[in-house]
Amino acid sequence: MKPASDLAHLFRPKTVAIFGSFKQGFFGGYTVVKQLISFGFPGKIYPINPRYNEVFDLKVYPSLKEVSEAVDLAMIMTNASAVPQIMLECAEKGVKAAIIVSDGFAERDKEGAKLQRAIVDIARRTGMRIVGPNTVGMMNTIDSTILCAYECWYEKVKKGAIALVGQTGIIGPQAMPWHEFSCGINKVVDLGNKCDVNESDVLEYLGNDSTIKVIALHLEDIKDGQRFLRIAKQVIKKKPVLVLKVGRTKEGAKALASHTGSLAGDDQVFDSLCKQAGIIRVDRWNELLNFAKILAHQPLPKGNRVGIVSVTGGGAAIMIDMAAQCGLAMASLSAQSSKRLAELYPPAWGANPIDLGPPAPYYGPETWFSLCQETLDILLNDDNVDCVAMVIAADPFGASLQVNAKMVERLIGNLSKPIAIWTYGPSLSHVAELSRGLENLGFPVYLEPETAVKALGVMYKYACAV
Amino acid sequence: MKPASDLAHLFRPKTVAIFGSFKQGFFGGYTVVKQLISFGFPGKIYPINPRYNEVFDLKVYPSLKEVSEAVDLAMIMTNASAVPQIMLECAEKGVKAAIIVSDGFAERDKEGAKLQRAIVDIARRTGMRIVGPNTVGMMNTIDSTILCAYECWYEKVKKGAIALVGQTGIIGPQAMPWHEFSCGINKVVDLGNKCDVNESDVLEYLGNDSTIKVIALHLEDIKDGQRFLRIAKQVIKKKPVLVLKVGRTKEGAKALASHTGSLAGDDQVFDSLCKQAGIIRVDRWNELLNFAKILAHQPLPKGNRVGIVSVTGGGAAIMIDMAAQCGLAMASLSAQSSKRLAELYPPAWGANPIDLGPPAPYYGPETWFSLCQETLDILLNDDNVDCVAMVIAADPFGASLQVNAKMVERLIGNLSKPIAIWTYGPSLSHVAELSRGLENLGFPVYLEPETAVKALGVMYKYACAV
Repeated sequence: MKPASDLAHLFRPKTVAIFGSFKQGFFGGYTVVKQLISFGFPGKIYPINPRYNEVFDLKVYPSLKEVSEAVDLAMIMTNASAVPQIMLECAEKGVKAAIIVSDGFAERDKEGAKLQRAIVDIARRTGMRIVGPNTVGMMNTIDSTILCAYECWYEKVKKGAIALVGQTGIIGPQAMPWHEFSCGINKVVDLGNKCDVNESDVLEYLGNDSTIKVIALHLEDIKDGQRFLRIAKQVIKKKPVLVLKVGRTKEGAKALASHTGSLAGDDQVFDSLCKQAGIIRVDRWNELLNFAKILAHQPLPKGNRVGIVSVTGGGAAIMIDMAAQCGLAMASLSAQSSKRLAELYPPAWGANPIDLGPPAPYYGPETWFSLCQETLDILLNDDNVDCVAMVIAADPFGASLQVNAKMVERLIGNLSKPIAIWTYGPSLSHVAELSRGLENLGFPVYLEPETAVKALGVMYKYACAV
Repeated sequence: MKPASDLAHLFRPKTVAIFGSFKQGFFGGYTVVKQLISFGFPGKIYPINPRYNEVFDLKVYPSLKEVSEAVDLAMIMTNASAVPQIMLECAEKGVKAAIIVSDGFAERDKEGAKLQRAIVDIARRTGMRIVGPNTVGMMNTIDSTILCAYECWYEKVKKGAIALVGQTGIIGPQAMPWHEFSCGINKVVDLGNKCDVNESDVLEYLGNDSTIKVIALHLEDIKDGQRFLRIAKQVIKKKPVLVLKVGRTKEGAKALASHTGSLAGDDQVFDSLCKQAGIIRVDRWNELLNFAKILAHQPLPKGNRVGIVSVTGGGAAIMIDMAAQCGLAMASLSAQSSKRLAELYPPAWGANPIDLGPPAPYYGPETWFSLCQETLDILLNDDNVDCVAMVIAADPFGASLQVNAKMVERLIGNLSKPIAIWTYGPSLSHVAELSRGLENLGFPVYLEPETAVKALGVMYKYACAV
């Protein structure tokens, strides 16, 4: 038994060995090498396979022994039955971490479970760390390292502060459009069967990674609840942790056995563990990213009082229902704010929410936009307001993205309260353009009024936990 | 007191008079006339305003009296104070319905409430029906009639079987991308302050409209609960009714008073009313459309047993949790289906959910797609399966929309069980293209795994109600 290697060898390898097929295709060694090169991996790549000589101008080595340099990480994409022998070679070579993509282990049958025990034994004996088996791999944008087994059709993913951990391949860049995500991604890892590296290991490592501001986890099971709780409590002092726990229902739990060989455990136990640790549970897959992006970019609120400024009164009313449901309270504006708002648009204003719809037809575009801007400032400067939900229509008056962006751009650097934006409009492409533009500035945009408010609720929840 | 006119004059007017400004702009008479013409309105348009002579080659009449023909509907977009006089002129002329866009009525202040009572008196006396005030208008795609007060930037909206009723302007085509909605829309109306025409009137009319298959309502209040219940019970025998009721929380209810002057009422009372009538309550704005599109296009399930066929096991597990939460049960496949599935992909198959992910890397694209197709057919032909949730990745193997479309296209006309599809992928534009393509064929697509399953839950709920 050797002490376990540092996970830095997994997330930031300097030399990688790739075991698999180097035949052109959308999966396997060929794809991994291609993507490492095109993503600009700064380290050394050693393709290993006795049946090939060269791939992308790189020498393919017949075996790992032939590589003279030390190797940090091995990525293995062979038949399951070949994996134990490869792992032995890796152990001999002193490889520090392995990503085992191959499936057909504990999630498949008894034979697979036996194979899985064999590779775990090797890891325990040598200190080598294993991610998987049954994983699509890992991505670290900060260090230009993409180890994904499938073709990604990607352009470079924007570097950011969000870490995503999943127990499913759909967390990977071959499945999700991370390169189109304006807020930026830091690291993504699919833990697969979690035969060795588990959620606690990863949470601890990512918790200590100063380039990461928020960690979002998709989990099918928890390997060691007590350790997870202990680590989560430490991490949450530094950054928020979001968890989507699958297998919440009896039926869902049953299905997990054949997906990653997981035992989901009692959901109520997990729920109380989250409450103790200050972990934020989310209900839906998309919420992992939706809430991560506001946590990564906006300041925390000091309290739960929300101000709403909206181009639609109907939309504001929908938001208020959700605010009440997720622990927010409607802010009572200060006398000064009310007075100023009533001066700005005498017929109807003074109270929260502020409906920018009625004055729209009576003001010219320029006047109306400065009205929007001034209204937003009144909310941000009111001591009775802790956070702001804002509704922006894509292109009322044919107004450009630039006008809307200007409204929030001037706040950058001085923003002391979080803003969540709901964007809608009669053209999907205008909505997408506006959303991207605002998110590039660090202002999270949502396509549902309810989610924008729920995101502020999550901010408040985390603020309470720290 | 005259008996109330038929709402056909509102939804299918043959002659319309437009009161407002005909100055070029994004709002008002100019916009309404422009849109009626470009949408291909087959009836007569009479712009009314003494300060203009002509708009879009149409004569502008100084007053309604000058129009010799009978007028079905008046659309009024003037200052609130001018509305009662215009309504008197309309009454004199025998106009059957009015859409009053003007705001500043009961939602504003006491003075406005007085004005609103004055126009209601005129309607009651003459039988004229009023939509609004404080509405953006109405759209009827079937009869090429768009009466929306705001510029829509729209192309023609696809004709369909879905009716949308709101108490907010965001239901209108100037706010929502109805023209980009593949499933097609039938009628949209914003009821505004509901001073006369209310949710019961509209529900009754749309219930009897044979071109409509599903009605989705956004409501801030219910004017007459007993009548609404009575009508809903009748309508639901013919078509499903979805309701998003705003003001569910105390805070939300308070906000409605200043939006449309509504009293939200007790939410529990409304909830029990929905249960009695068989109305399906939805939780979110987007669900109105998300659930309407499956109800409009897919057959009802005979029971609650769902089969899941997915390219991702992790996605399937997420779906199973939601299935259990919304009253669906995982189907136990017949012995014959299990046997056939085990033959198709020996290592892992036989049970529900069916994970198409593991075989993907080992089969060529063509073989894999026929595997997907055969798997879908097994579920559709299994008597133990009532509905199917399907997960399609946009472009695995770079496969085209055509391949995926072929998989469902051949089912058209013979489909006896509903299918809901979740689509995801590494490229947003590919996902959008695939979704549009599948929806054009009548297969509803969702961008969240949970929503696809919830949509099937709604289908089952309606099947139970009829």
